[in-house]
Amino acid sequence: MSETHDTTGDAPYYERHIFFCLNERERGEDSCALHGAKEGFDHCKKRVKAEGLAGRGGVRVNKAGCLDRCAGGPVAVVYPEGVWYTFVDEQDIDEIVESHLKNGQPVERLKLAPDVGR
Amino acid sequence: MSETHDTTGDAPYYERHIFFCLNERERGEDSCALHGAKEGFDHCKKRVKAEGLAGRGGVRVNKAGCLDRCAGGPVAVVYPEGVWYTFVDEQDIDEIVESHLKNGQPVERLKLAPDVGR
Repeated sequence: MSETHDTTGDAPYYERHIFFCLNERERGEDSCALHGAKEGFDHCKKRVKAEGLAGRGGVRVNKAGCLDRCAGGPVAVVYPEGVWYTFVDEQDIDEIVESHLKNGQPVERLKLAPDVGR
Repeated sequence: MSETHDTTGDAPYYERHIFFCLNERERGEDSCALHGAKEGFDHCKKRVKAEGLAGRGGVRVNKAGCLDRCAGGPVAVVYPEGVWYTFVDEQDIDEIVESHLKNGQPVERLKLAPDVGR
């Protein structure tokens, strides 16, 4: 873990990086984890791998802690676009993978409303 | 957690979103968590708050699972720019906060080399 600093260009390491809030609060408080976040993450990871999109230069499906937009949970965010999603089921995830992660077209119907916060 | 889909514009919810790999492997394998990742995260969170940068329209300092660039650990990535960092101490974090998160100027000396992977 040394000699690892950049001396060259700035090509993105991942073309797209999606982060799923998997936060689970203590004392039974509401959280993304209680609304299928882990299931969405697992399904997304599986689909991205099956589509051959996973890895460097492609797509990374990532666990994240609280993204602080809990009122819209379960939530995920795709960078570099900064598109936020709220999802319900595997079909929603399939659409995000196929349309956005694979083809660069955000899924309008699943976007989180801009005023949704904690 | 309903009626939360976007119907309007696309202003970014966070101006900048930094994710720290806090992954801790089982069986004592090497991981970011063994190289000061949590300390870097905690310090970054504290500094961002102290600078008044935290929150909507500002900066979010986020926990993340494995970012899969373990050989450069501890690592963090800043979006939307997609700039990856490897850091050693609190001064490194201070520089990332001041230069990049606050003023939009990536810290060249702390960038992760592009070929660093797992």
